Amino acid sequence: MNARIDTTRVGIVGAGPAGLMLSHLLAKAGIDNIVVEKRDRGTIANTHRAGILEHGSVRLLTDSGVDGRVLTEGHRHDGIDLRFAGESHRIDFADLIGESVWLYPQNEVFVDLADARERDGGDVRYSVTDTEVLDQTTDTPKIRFTDVDGTAVEIHCDILVGADGSQSVCRRSIPEQVRTDNFVEYPFAWFGILTEAPPSAPELIYANSEHGFALISQRSDTVQRMYFQCDPGTDASVWTEDQIWEELQKRVDGPDGFQLKRGRIFEQMVLPFRSYVCEPMRYGNLFLAGDAGHTVPPTGAKGLNLALADVRVLFEAIDSFYATKSPELLDGYSDTALARVWRAQNFSYWMTNMLHTRADANPFERKRALGELASVTSSRYGRQYLAEGYTGWPHS
Amino acid sequence: MNARIDTTRVGIVGAGPAGLMLSHLLAKAGIDNIVVEKRDRGTIANTHRAGILEHGSVRLLTDSGVDGRVLTEGHRHDGIDLRFAGESHRIDFADLIGESVWLYPQNEVFVDLADARERDGGDVRYSVTDTEVLDQTTDTPKIRFTDVDGTAVEIHCDILVGADGSQSVCRRSIPEQVRTDNFVEYPFAWFGILTEAPPSAPELIYANSEHGFALISQRSDTVQRMYFQCDPGTDASVWTEDQIWEELQKRVDGPDGFQLKRGRIFEQMVLPFRSYVCEPMRYGNLFLAGDAGHTVPPTGAKGLNLALADVRVLFEAIDSFYATKSPELLDGYSDTALARVWRAQNFSYWMTNMLHTRADANPFERKRALGELASVTSSRYGRQYLAEGYTGWPHS
Repeated sequence: MNARIDTTRVGIVGAGPAGLMLSHLLAKAGIDNIVVEKRDRGTIANTHRAGILEHGSVRLLTDSGVDGRVLTEGHRHDGIDLRFAGESHRIDFADLIGESVWLYPQNEVFVDLADARERDGGDVRYSVTDTEVLDQTTDTPKIRFTDVDGTAVEIHCDILVGADGSQSVCRRSIPEQVRTDNFVEYPFAWFGILTEAPPSAPELIYANSEHGFALISQRSDTVQRMYFQCDPGTDASVWTEDQIWEELQKRVDGPDGFQLKRGRIFEQMVLPFRSYVCEPMRYGNLFLAGDAGHTVPPTGAKGLNLALADVRVLFEAIDSFYATKSPELLDGYSDTALARVWRAQNFSYWMTNMLHTRADANPFERKRALGELASVTSSRYGRQYLAEGYTGWPHS
Repeated sequence: MNARIDTTRVGIVGAGPAGLMLSHLLAKAGIDNIVVEKRDRGTIANTHRAGILEHGSVRLLTDSGVDGRVLTEGHRHDGIDLRFAGESHRIDFADLIGESVWLYPQNEVFVDLADARERDGGDVRYSVTDTEVLDQTTDTPKIRFTDVDGTAVEIHCDILVGADGSQSVCRRSIPEQVRTDNFVEYPFAWFGILTEAPPSAPELIYANSEHGFALISQRSDTVQRMYFQCDPGTDASVWTEDQIWEELQKRVDGPDGFQLKRGRIFEQMVLPFRSYVCEPMRYGNLFLAGDAGHTVPPTGAKGLNLALADVRVLFEAIDSFYATKSPELLDGYSDTALARVWRAQNFSYWMTNMLHTRADANPFERKRALGELASVTSSRYGRQYLAEGYTGWPHS
């Protein structure tokens, strides 16, 4: 064991938005930390993921001084369109609850955070290999890895944070007898595309149709992202552009004659998804944040926002621990984070089930779901309840 | 065929609240009608059913001059209690949306309506046998039956109304190829009791617990009605009073030490239930109203209220038909009624699924349901949305 030993207060595994945001907040508070990440910076910057930020997520980025680019280059969306039975029903967030969301891709959030960590002299080590965590239940938990130059390194810290995504090494280091894996699979997936076309609509369209769900989203003035519900076994590569456009169009067809604006499709893939929650989100001095602790289906755009909400709670707990020496907030982290996680899981599950169709649904179920969409959209209270969940509950 | 022929404008099968309410409204508008009913008046008056009236149902009874007894003998409830994880969360209807419901048993509604029809000289024939409907798609549909004296009678009318409950003879007269039966079964039933005891709480308690759902309801100052979720195959007769009280109590147990007030149990039975909708609710000149067209699970107390909502729409359509000779509103009856029916079906399904537990639910599903209860109760918008559905959407 000839590893070099580096010592810090907080060791963070994963330099996605959750890990970097936590690192940034800790550094601002004067709390030493090191981040290790198996991917290189360019790969993360080019991994396209979710693109909707809750108002609380935007404020976290801007108030903490990461960057204001989300406000200038992102697009504020004051509503979404719920489309069913061929008719559009706008959920006007601004009017209903006085809040908004921002369209700003997750990889841009990463770029801003990575730049801020670099600007502020943060210690972020990309392209590491063979990462493992050990001694999680001791006062000196450790991260062991090989750095980009081939040097074996061991980070000794007080607090270990697993922000290493859905395939989390940190989570898997928690013995199975002390964690509960809660999950549900869905009998469908999303067929996603990126296309060179102008926006088909100014805001996101969540469309329910007898042919299945579709999401008409935006990315920029010239590139758009769209999805349609498909069988999880679908092979994306055999679909022609014409077939994809036809499938998308028939899910938004209606008496209003709404037409998608078509363009060259330059990326097409199938995204399977499931709902998952690890309980508790703590093991000794190891704390999980973001996808390492939970994943949600993409309907409702909660994934990144939930990760940032975890980070806010965890940062306050760590900050309090070093300021007061009391572990009270750290001890409460898992319960506090999980309360929001289960609300978000329910929101994502609700949106997913209300908007998707199931091959095995009987006629009652299909019409009940339409009754639910009608109930929600025809009631100001229903629209407010949905708007509040979509734009993000207040942080407690 | 030696039947006596009676002629009227509207022939109504079923003298439950739906049939009698329609008869009352039509008579007030000067539209002749006859009601036939297979049960005798005393039996209906002693059949205990639901007991929660929406504000719109109360107004229909009082504004139309049926009786004001609902206001003096019924109890106004300004909220309900959603209890889960051993804690109570009040849904304060009055504060949230400025509305209320009334606790007033369905058989009292029947008594008021039957008295009003008698007072006003209505033609209601109880205890008839062998009822059948015919010629529904002609201009002279007919009801054929044997009256209480054994006389064969045929009622010739312009419009036939099936308000004859969930086992509706009228509905079953609609050929299967022109109707859709939408339904879903539930893997549980309600074990219901009537007990001689003071009220355990001032308002209804809807309790979710790991042991299953319970509803703590009231009937009067000295008699209470309570239910707990059970297996549909349960034999109510073998349960002792002690077993029943223990089962109810453990579903409301919590750190607040809430205790049910026990008394002699003088009725105990198992109520299976399902969700059902017949589409369309019309066949020629036969129109279905209330349970004949749809049944809801009892969670949410929508059954009687939905029946009265149907009657309101149907009365206006029939009244318009005789006033203008235009069948426009009659032609729209099924769609108009069904729009509310599907909202109510969704509400009942939502309340049922959120509050009951399923033996086959995985840990994710159980915790997600708790996340939903937490979402609804911790959000003013969520509470308002639930309160609006419970107290009744505005009549359009």
